[in-house]
Amino acid sequence: MDQRISVTTLVVEDVAATRRFFEEGLGWQVNSAPGPDVVFFQITGGVFALYGRAALAEEIGRPVTETPTGAITLAWNGRSEDEVDKSFLAALSAGARPVKEPQKAFWGGYSSYVEIPGGHLLEIAYNPFWSIDPQGSVLLPPAQ
Amino acid sequence: MDQRISVTTLVVEDVAATRRFFEEGLGWQVNSAPGPDVVFFQITGGVFALYGRAALAEEIGRPVTETPTGAITLAWNGRSEDEVDKSFLAALSAGARPVKEPQKAFWGGYSSYVEIPGGHLLEIAYNPFWSIDPQGSVLLPPAQ
Repeated sequence: MDQRISVTTLVVEDVAATRRFFEEGLGWQVNSAPGPDVVFFQITGGVFALYGRAALAEEIGRPVTETPTGAITLAWNGRSEDEVDKSFLAALSAGARPVKEPQKAFWGGYSSYVEIPGGHLLEIAYNPFWSIDPQGSVLLPPAQ
Repeated sequence: MDQRISVTTLVVEDVAATRRFFEEGLGWQVNSAPGPDVVFFQITGGVFALYGRAALAEEIGRPVTETPTGAITLAWNGRSEDEVDKSFLAALSAGARPVKEPQKAFWGGYSSYVEIPGGHLLEIAYNPFWSIDPQGSVLLPPAQ
């Protein structure tokens, strides 16, 4: 599990309001918004995302009240499902707590979640629709 | 204020515990730790950091209880103090709330904080000790 952060995701109550800040306020280009609760921006070296609190709570199987606004998730993306399995075990060995075992995800990839010391969530995932360059940065498909 | 995230910083109660997870657990290389409450890692495309909750609360002038564990700060780094002043105003125009006006920072740079819609903190800063490559990624000095 090499030294990379693939995605930094802000967890917010009102995705549309935060999206407006970046898109209309700052003029940032949205890459894609596969649903009302998720927005992806391509940035240098990776991906910056917004995700609804209720959607995250449902994905990780926690009550919304234990998924506070103000939180984020980090993601480390591997290049295969096998790499996710190995990295999930590596994270547990390193001291993380399991939140969601590696499994097929509703969005078509393969995903797991751990809670790292300090309480932040780290998703360890494989996304067959994204590419990873030789330096390890996620490259999104062309904007939709 | 172009489409970049310079630094993703996890705000944690116990910096040493989270540092151990990444450094000893996963084998990530620390670039520098200028104090007990702050740790920097160079990653592709930017910087990943850990910061103590009490230290952040002091820096932004908020009670610790309003600076929850589980939070992060994002930073957008400019190439000059003037760029910080302009970007701070751009962020306010875009809908952010001022938290700390641009000013000389204790660490030798020039820094401001805003709260963006959704509640996350965004630091807008100039760090004379860091360089920014043509793609906008922060490059840390050699590891100390």
